[in-house]
Amino acid sequence: MTPIPVTCDTRPRLNFDAEVLLRAQAVRVLLLDVDGVLTPGDLLVGEGGEVIKRFSTLDGHGLKLLAASGVLPVVVSGRDSPPLRERLRELGLEAHAVLGKSRKLPGAEDLLRELGLRWEQAAVMGDDWPDLPLLARAQCAACPPVAHPDVLARVHYRTTAAAGFGAVREVCDLLLVAQGAYRRLLEQAIAGEEESQVKPTLLSTSPLRGS
Amino acid sequence: MTPIPVTCDTRPRLNFDAEVLLRAQAVRVLLLDVDGVLTPGDLLVGEGGEVIKRFSTLDGHGLKLLAASGVLPVVVSGRDSPPLRERLRELGLEAHAVLGKSRKLPGAEDLLRELGLRWEQAAVMGDDWPDLPLLARAQCAACPPVAHPDVLARVHYRTTAAAGFGAVREVCDLLLVAQGAYRRLLEQAIAGEEESQVKPTLLSTSPLRGS
Amino acid sequence: MTPIPVTCDTRPRLNFDAEVLLRAQAVRVLLLDVDGVLTPGDLLVGEGGEVIKRFSTLDGHGLKLLAASGVLPVVVSGRDSPPLRERLRELGLEAHAVLGKSRKLPGAEDLLRELGLRWEQAAVMGDDWPDLPLLARAQCAACPPVAHPDVLARVHYRTTAAAGFGAVREVCDLLLVAQGAYRRLLEQAIAGEEESQVKPTLLSTSPLRGS
Amino acid sequence: MTPIPVTCDTRPRLNFDAEVLLRAQAVRVLLLDVDGVLTPGDLLVGEGGEVIKRFSTLDGHGLKLLAASGVLPVVVSGRDSPPLRERLRELGLEAHAVLGKSRKLPGAEDLLRELGLRWEQAAVMGDDWPDLPLLARAQCAACPPVAHPDVLARVHYRTTAAAGFGAVREVCDLLLVAQGAYRRLLEQAIAGEEESQVKPTLLSTSPLRGS
Repeated sequence: MTPIPVTCDTRPRLNFDAEVLLRAQAVRVLLLDVDGVLTPGDLLVGEGGEVIKRFSTLDGHGLKLLAASGVLPVVVSGRDSPPLRERLRELGLEAHAVLGKSRKLPGAEDLLRELGLRWEQAAVMGDDWPDLPLLARAQCAACPPVAHPDVLARVHYRTTAAAGFGAVREVCDLLLVAQGAYRRLLEQAIAGEEESQVKPTLLSTSPLRGS
Repeated sequence: MTPIPVTCDTRPRLNFDAEVLLRAQAVRVLLLDVDGVLTPGDLLVGEGGEVIKRFSTLDGHGLKLLAASGVLPVVVSGRDSPPLRERLRELGLEAHAVLGKSRKLPGAEDLLRELGLRWEQAAVMGDDWPDLPLLARAQCAACPPVAHPDVLARVHYRTTAAAGFGAVREVCDLLLVAQGAYRRLLEQAIAGEEESQVKPTLLSTSPLRGS
Repeated sequence: MTPIPVTCDTRPRLNFDAEVLLRAQAVRVLLLDVDGVLTPGDLLVGEGGEVIKRFSTLDGHGLKLLAASGVLPVVVSGRDSPPLRERLRELGLEAHAVLGKSRKLPGAEDLLRELGLRWEQAAVMGDDWPDLPLLARAQCAACPPVAHPDVLARVHYRTTAAAGFGAVREVCDLLLVAQGAYRRLLEQAIAGEEESQVKPTLLSTSPLRGS
Repeated sequence: MTPIPVTCDTRPRLNFDAEVLLRAQAVRVLLLDVDGVLTPGDLLVGEGGEVIKRFSTLDGHGLKLLAASGVLPVVVSGRDSPPLRERLRELGLEAHAVLGKSRKLPGAEDLLRELGLRWEQAAVMGDDWPDLPLLARAQCAACPPVAHPDVLARVHYRTTAAAGFGAVREVCDLLLVAQGAYRRLLEQAIAGEEESQVKPTLLSTSPLRGS
């Protein structure tokens, strides 16, 4: 038997619309709701409150790749719980997280100020009314397929993957493709190498911004 | 880059039939089954009984909005458990809850008497036979898409969203739209404001009541 | 506003084929697999083994109705765990349960002998190969929609409802309809009465048995 | 009533393409990712990390049958946790498992060397980028229906069953059919016998290997 030639086709198999790719090009920070976005939206309540939260391994790897590409993922949640903190610790997302505020706008604006970024550089992913003020201001607004109808009607991108089962990974892929980092990371993965830090791309000054 | 004008389209994106909206107009109390309505209907049993229950964040926010609009949500369950009590505490629904009675009718009738309300002012959401006596008497009877066939055949409204994943929110939205409270609450949400208490609307004396 | 006349349509809303109804008529015992039949088939494993099992409230009520109609539900599982024992206790199904035997046939045959019943009086519900010897002998063999292809190919009835979300209830309904107990129980439920014990029907001597 | 003749149709009810069956013929080891392959891909995180993992009973029985047929199942996971170890112990898969390495290729190559096997004798099942180096080298690469698009595009076989609900069983069935072990095991199951050890088939030298 002849040895297997590992010459794998490395072309990305993702398709995103040009308009949403242009929107995603300028993004430097991804603001993420937790319940219904990073989880399926079911609260697992025990005697002492939320004892377990369900996260997705697909999302976890996407957030790792996104951070390597120079885009910062930040969690903005109205809730707070030990399982959420545990997962944020595991993903290295504790530093900037905004937790336990039912009104999300002030915390998000403080965060952008600290990071020296503007809403034109922010992508937002949410599923319910408390996310609307952020989604309305975001350069790129996304939601999972199960979201409130008034969120679904106001986003630039709706994922195919379900929340808690890869919805966030899909938005990470969108950002990676838009910024030209995807193919290099994919080739490294196929070769079995650790992903290298990708040099941040220049800020987009895309003329589509107001469209 | 020019500043983003946050002029968000605030028209509600929900559609309900006129008949069910008229039914929902008179409602002052929403009686809710728990398992299969506020949860997906799977009992998570550990060594000592039900150790975890799964609730929906979408439902939780809807119940908060509903209460703010002046309609009282009340849980009527044949079961009882520490996780259920924990969630009711979190949602502020402990006061009137009727728990642990396999026959639901007497408890529901006592409750209405205490509240000074009649069945013509009650919406009911259930999924199984123990809910049938309440559903049969309700001004507005609703169920999730996975419910017993003999419940599905006897309700005025069947939600699109699954139980434990927004089914109750959909009924909250129906009641909020019917009572004219929805748009104001939505605009407050988009603006990032706390929802203000909505003045209760007048009791409907809709002529459709017996139809 | 006029009082609501509670004159509810009590016709059953279930449809079963004549052939499977005739098969179900003779049944006096329902042998049930656990994982993938009474649960969705996902084992929730913690540090010390199976810490949680997921059951369905729809199934629980069906088993209660079935027992009231005079058909005995018995669990036959290759596995055993504290959560399973807890649920069996709650449902009153501990007495006859056959647990922890990877080969199910000897235990099932012992059970039938004790009960003084024959395979012609047994319905069986299973989803995998260990259930095949029982399904092959049953008067009425059923499985949920997600089952091994070689089980799906060998049953008389495949439920529409998913395992752990009402699949067993559907088989209970089939047995209740076949035995003429369904409508009376439904009318009692709508009236808000406790279900009365139904007098067991005569054993069927249906000529279809070998078809 | 006449006794039931248990003359059960024992023909397998599975259909696999000829090409993938030929690929599967040479396989002596099945390398399995865990999250999103042996589980649905949702991480159940508590205060102290992953407290529960969800596995499938269908998969468990398939792995038992596969081992009986002479093909070795081995888990290769980037993660490690007490629930995973517990399940591997239950399935008898502790000996060779490669756990807790984010880069999977070195561990997999060490394993094959220890077993005296080559990539031409390996099937691989994965769902995400860390599995790509293994999938690219495997004689037979498979994934569940929910997998990253760049995995879906690079496998020889995509299962119909969902991860954590029989996806791995489907690949076990494929390997059992390809190696001529399936029918004998099925007949033993229907007869209610324990599966006997199947004599390993000869290594395939299929001319299709490079196609």
